[in-house]
Amino acid sequence: MKTVNIGIIGFGTVGAGVAETILNNGKLIADRTGFMPVLKRVADLDITTDRGVVLPEGVLTTSSMEILDDPDIHIVVELIGGTTIAREFILRALQCGKSVVTANKALLATHGEELFRVASEHGCDIGFEASVGGGIPCIKALREGLVGNHIKTVLGILNGTCNYILTRMENEHADFADVLSAAQAAGYAEADPALDVDGIDTAHKAAVLASLAFGQWFQAKDVHVQGIRSVTVNDIDYAAEMGYRIKLLAIIKEINNRIELGVQPALVPANSLIGNVNGVFNAVWVQGDIVGNTMYYGRGAGRQATASAVIADIVDIGFNLLRNCTQRLPAFKTYKQYDGLMASEQIVSRYYIRLQIEDKPGVLAKVSGLLGTHGISIATVAQKELAMPAVPMIILTHKAPERSILDAMAAIGALPEVFEKPVLFRLEELEQ
Amino acid sequence: MKTVNIGIIGFGTVGAGVAETILNNGKLIADRTGFMPVLKRVADLDITTDRGVVLPEGVLTTSSMEILDDPDIHIVVELIGGTTIAREFILRALQCGKSVVTANKALLATHGEELFRVASEHGCDIGFEASVGGGIPCIKALREGLVGNHIKTVLGILNGTCNYILTRMENEHADFADVLSAAQAAGYAEADPALDVDGIDTAHKAAVLASLAFGQWFQAKDVHVQGIRSVTVNDIDYAAEMGYRIKLLAIIKEINNRIELGVQPALVPANSLIGNVNGVFNAVWVQGDIVGNTMYYGRGAGRQATASAVIADIVDIGFNLLRNCTQRLPAFKTYKQYDGLMASEQIVSRYYIRLQIEDKPGVLAKVSGLLGTHGISIATVAQKELAMPAVPMIILTHKAPERSILDAMAAIGALPEVFEKPVLFRLEELEQ
Repeated sequence: MKTVNIGIIGFGTVGAGVAETILNNGKLIADRTGFMPVLKRVADLDITTDRGVVLPEGVLTTSSMEILDDPDIHIVVELIGGTTIAREFILRALQCGKSVVTANKALLATHGEELFRVASEHGCDIGFEASVGGGIPCIKALREGLVGNHIKTVLGILNGTCNYILTRMENEHADFADVLSAAQAAGYAEADPALDVDGIDTAHKAAVLASLAFGQWFQAKDVHVQGIRSVTVNDIDYAAEMGYRIKLLAIIKEINNRIELGVQPALVPANSLIGNVNGVFNAVWVQGDIVGNTMYYGRGAGRQATASAVIADIVDIGFNLLRNCTQRLPAFKTYKQYDGLMASEQIVSRYYIRLQIEDKPGVLAKVSGLLGTHGISIATVAQKELAMPAVPMIILTHKAPERSILDAMAAIGALPEVFEKPVLFRLEELEQ
Repeated sequence: MKTVNIGIIGFGTVGAGVAETILNNGKLIADRTGFMPVLKRVADLDITTDRGVVLPEGVLTTSSMEILDDPDIHIVVELIGGTTIAREFILRALQCGKSVVTANKALLATHGEELFRVASEHGCDIGFEASVGGGIPCIKALREGLVGNHIKTVLGILNGTCNYILTRMENEHADFADVLSAAQAAGYAEADPALDVDGIDTAHKAAVLASLAFGQWFQAKDVHVQGIRSVTVNDIDYAAEMGYRIKLLAIIKEINNRIELGVQPALVPANSLIGNVNGVFNAVWVQGDIVGNTMYYGRGAGRQATASAVIADIVDIGFNLLRNCTQRLPAFKTYKQYDGLMASEQIVSRYYIRLQIEDKPGVLAKVSGLLGTHGISIATVAQKELAMPAVPMIILTHKAPERSILDAMAAIGALPEVFEKPVLFRLEELEQ
């Protein structure tokens, strides 16, 4: 039996899951592929914490160099995260002729183009299925399964923590802060939740998906990001009354040779497929010119689900090594130039607006007048009856340029009868 | 620019879609892959009907042999269907050293093992992504994306015609026969609908998915099949009242080293993801031991969607040809032996039962008594109030062996107060 030797750098949650899967399911993988994945080395600075998996004698080490410099190791799995040391390790592995598997979306969204160039120069592969969508084989679907398609739209629920929080807010009628605290206590959210709830992690993943979809490398800094801190349980309830759910969406579109690249809370139809992706689950919705609408769904994070994607990359690269065809799929190269990212004038969408208004006659007339002035047409309006001086007014608009909406919001927010900064979310209609 | 030369046998709906995609999106594919797919020949007995695509001069021929015997053609795309001539053409192509792409599930479910053996002997590839799930890259997900997983369950909505009919029955509150007629008139169902509505097409696809999931070749004849002719609009309504939708499901499970392989109408939760797959769309729901639950969704048929999958196979094989690594993924070989297919005693599920009973006291006691005698526990029961001598009684059971359910149905059906043959469907609970 042929073998492929693997070194894992980073023995945290995912590293332990990958090690465990290689040990537990190695024979199954060998039955299917004809080669046995062998866990040669696992490196971590902390080799004393119990990770819930028993490694064979001599596998664990504190020295990453013992992996990077070991000529017997064929594939280096980088699972330490971050954009500094991880980059150095990956570059060194590639320069030593070793192929790399990584789940590091932050690194790809910052230094992806450099990494793929170096991989190409050294005839190595970089597998990154685990970087987006956890265990969902969505990178493979986009790069290979839909290779014949011009991709028009990608929408993603890409952060399990945010989706878990939004789902619990809806189910338990609970406030963001309370659900976040509970999620932190239960280990579903980090002590510093900014990376998740401010949409940064989703933006990293959106940059990777957009690059694959459109053939031009996008970086995290290209992504317009709005997190979920501004979503209240009232917004979720109002959306539900009108047949929608609120999800943190990566919104990736190509229209007229310009790219939209954003992460925003968005209303989606409650009876749509993506509207039924709940809890820690992720989904990637892809529209191609030939295939039409497709969707890929599964666990977006976690020890085992992410390990499943890492193993898929190991097997792909293992086949390439044994058949002497690394770079069988060429490393990412730009093949198309677009006329840039869409400006606010060019982004056209429906919107959800929530205003806190003074409960007196004539306010709706003023608000709708200002919307009309900016060319924005109202689809639905609802004013809530509450025994308070400030009452919420909910507006769903028809399609309008984002620029017009933002200008109208500024004008409306300046009305004396409008008490708080207007809340604005996207509304994405998805036909099946 | 390197080229890969393609010959298509069968210029029907899908053949025309593939030809059109190669012509329209060839440059995109070349940008992404580094090689240009070239449409060298298209063979069909009928070369006069307008297919809506203009082929270059000299491409169209009535002779399949001009493709099979042309040494310049690298990949043969078989799109004629059926299990006789298609088999001969594919075998001849493989024996000539040409790799093959096919969408022919009937052929794979009958002669798959032979075809893969011959492909392996001649160092050729067979791509069959388009055989299941139309444009959804579900074969790739199962073979590659989830390669590290023991697959426990696959559930599939695999026939667009059936799902279209069931969706219209629900939305329009219409009878099966009326919707079928309308579907036939609109071209969504064949004049002879048996292949679709009797579940045979789904069974072919189920056999292919089961073989990939479990590593032992299954044939269509191994699949227990029940079509959708017995589903009435009343069943759909009763299911909806209880929070379920009725779908024709391929049900593929491994439990205790035995395989369940069936196609049956089944109730699924209306708020589940698979319960929201409507119209002509398909979905494949896969549960792996590492990845957990995943789902793949898209158009299950049609000129363009199916072409998308064929193109993906062409590109995969194109890479292999250019990098001299055909059979990079080994052709299907059995790697596991199971203790056979599950007997009726071993299949355990929840069930939906509809009885037409005489509206008089004591019938429920008799029915529930017989269910109890067979060890079947009732979860929900509803007797409909209608001004008729025969009224429907709906029962949802807890989990019970299929054998016990069938025995109980026979006993209940023999009661003088029960007027028609009891209707029995599966009920599949799917947690997200």
